[in-house]
Amino acid sequence: MSVTPQSAPSPSAVTVLGLGPMGRALAGAFLAAGIRTTVWNRTPGREGDLTERGAVTAASAAEAVAASPLTVICLVNYDATDAVLRQDAVEAALKGRTLVNLSADTPDRARDTGRWAGEHGVRYVDGAIMTPAGTIGSPDGVFLYSGPAGTYEEHRAVLDALGGSHTHLGEDVGRAAAYDIALLDIFWTAMGGFVHALALADAEGVSPRELAPFAAGIARILPPLFDEFAGDVEDATYSGAINPLTSGVSTMAHVVHAAEAHAIDSGAMRAIEGLARRTVALGHGADGFSRVAEVLRRR
Amino acid sequence: MSVTPQSAPSPSAVTVLGLGPMGRALAGAFLAAGIRTTVWNRTPGREGDLTERGAVTAASAAEAVAASPLTVICLVNYDATDAVLRQDAVEAALKGRTLVNLSADTPDRARDTGRWAGEHGVRYVDGAIMTPAGTIGSPDGVFLYSGPAGTYEEHRAVLDALGGSHTHLGEDVGRAAAYDIALLDIFWTAMGGFVHALALADAEGVSPRELAPFAAGIARILPPLFDEFAGDVEDATYSGAINPLTSGVSTMAHVVHAAEAHAIDSGAMRAIEGLARRTVALGHGADGFSRVAEVLRRR
Ligand SMILES: NC(=O)c1ccc[n+]([C@@H]2O[C@H](COP(=O)([O-])OP(=O)(O)OC[C@H]3O[C@@H](n4cnc5c(N)ncnc54)[C@H](OP(=O)(O)O)[C@@H]3O)[C@@H](O)[C@H]2O)c1
Ligand SMILES: NC(=O)c1ccc[n+]([C@@H]2O[C@H](COP(=O)([O-])OP(=O)(O)OC[C@H]3O[C@@H](n4cnc5c(N)ncnc54)[C@H](OP(=O)(O)O)[C@@H]3O)[C@@H](O)[C@H]2O)c1
Repeated sequence: MSVTPQSAPSPSAVTVLGLGPMGRALAGAFLAAGIRTTVWNRTPGREGDLTERGAVTAASAAEAVAASPLTVICLVNYDATDAVLRQDAVEAALKGRTLVNLSADTPDRARDTGRWAGEHGVRYVDGAIMTPAGTIGSPDGVFLYSGPAGTYEEHRAVLDALGGSHTHLGEDVGRAAAYDIALLDIFWTAMGGFVHALALADAEGVSPRELAPFAAGIARILPPLFDEFAGDVEDATYSGAINPLTSGVSTMAHVVHAAEAHAIDSGAMRAIEGLARRTVALGHGADGFSRVAEVLRRR
Repeated sequence: MSVTPQSAPSPSAVTVLGLGPMGRALAGAFLAAGIRTTVWNRTPGREGDLTERGAVTAASAAEAVAASPLTVICLVNYDATDAVLRQDAVEAALKGRTLVNLSADTPDRARDTGRWAGEHGVRYVDGAIMTPAGTIGSPDGVFLYSGPAGTYEEHRAVLDALGGSHTHLGEDVGRAAAYDIALLDIFWTAMGGFVHALALADAEGVSPRELAPFAAGIARILPPLFDEFAGDVEDATYSGAINPLTSGVSTMAHVVHAAEAHAIDSGAMRAIEGLARRTVALGHGADGFSRVAEVLRRR
């Protein structure tokens, strides 16, 4: 939530490992901010226009890391970052330098990478990007970090060049990944519901573009409901005064039945309806849907 | 998307059948607009403060229907509306009058009710409410209608007293329900993802209120993605340039594995990951997640 100070000390430099859609966007934003940027990707030739915009391509990951005090890595997952990072030459080049891992994976994998970094004298910050590649370099990007606050603060001016909001969530190196998986859970489930709705609407003669503005209306009612549900769950109130579970399960069943009558696989909605029915069967039919969060956590 | 004309002809009157949270909100908004409102509910005593605000309680559904040219019914589903409406006295009272059914159910049930209405000389408009009961009477309510346009237009001034936006989707009486189930699909799947994310975050030491502002951020990136995906599906482009399915399935697996490592049921996310993997296996790994909509519709 901060902005690059124009008085940043000394010309900064950064290395970006990984040139998928996100790695390319990160490198492009660093270049746009006037930061000396070195790039490397497992498969060569993925620089796009980065080279003509001033990026230097390194011949190896170790050479790339050696070019900058800060390396940002953004690969598909931590199997991939392990494959790149856990090599003698890369470990030697990273020693004493800072590595920020913006790849997505689980909190356990982030903590494991934190341990590896500690063993090799690598200063390590974990992170996650919560917005699409197209938001990088704009005010809409959302970046989360966790790990040593001092290390994060030291490189913050360079990271802020990516634009958007940057939040350090705490010293536990797994914390950014914990937020990441919870937020990806919301993202993919919502997107899964949307593509399923497109298929169902199509089967009912409603085109994607006819449905889209109303679908956006559904997305717009979510933020206040998320707030309300978060309060309901944290305070264990689970209010069903406005919309009791008994009412909700009925509409869930309509979705499943209508979709399955068109032979459309409805596993996700079935699973959610099942959770809601189980919650009703446990005696919570008059509660709101927020009660399902509590039931999911029961042992 | 229109506003009640202040010059509405003759003092209007409306009957509301059903006093659940939504029925009460509808009756309250009619009263607030100065419309003479008669109410009835299967279980007596559910009027809340509607009586002191001027609502007249009828002794039976037939008596309630006879009190107004327009009846709005809002019950849990069409099993319930059938139970109330398909009785001789109610059918006789409804003859020549207009019935607007704002209960939720499938398009087939709406069309079946349209047929029943035709057989009994009842002028019938089907509808759906896409926003929570708390939005009724405010600019945030979203109402969908389908069925004879003339009948809808005739009662539009009274319906507009409910506030918000009112859209007539066409003459096919099942069309409002088709939008309704598709939009409920998005709504419940997203809410299912959210309560699952709350459970997962909690297991990782992140509280509901800590997650909520970032969750709202995810909701805010959905409307432009819905638009983009709708275009992708309607034009059969399925672009994966920004986020290919091969990248997405990896992050879906992180969610499932992290949640199941905490013994949290993850059926919905598993179902969505399964669809995405199946789509990759069908040769569409370089496409975007929008391709799943097309795969869901295959025969
Ligand atoms: N794209 C978005 O909009 C977006 C949004 C938020 C977060 N993210 C996250 O950002 C990260 C990167 O995503 P992306 O969109 O750039 O695409 P991606 O498909 O997730 O990752 C592609 C990158 O991973 C590399 N890679 C894969 N396996 C490898 C291995 N075994 N060894 C070395 N490199 C390997 C690829 O190298 P090759 O070119 O050699 O295959 C390429 O650089 C992911 O964790 C993703 O979840 C992306
Ligand atoms: N609440 C919301 O925020 C919301 C938002 C959008 C759409 N909707 C839709 O609006 C409709 C009404 O919802 P609601 O929130 O008012 O609560 P609900 O629990 O869905 O419906 C309660 C109403 O249904 C009646 N009912 C149930 N079974 C019946 C039967 N067999 N015979 C006669 N009446 C019966 C109840 O009467 P008794 O009191 O006698 O049980 C009560 O009037 C539903 O279709 C719902 O999906 C609700």
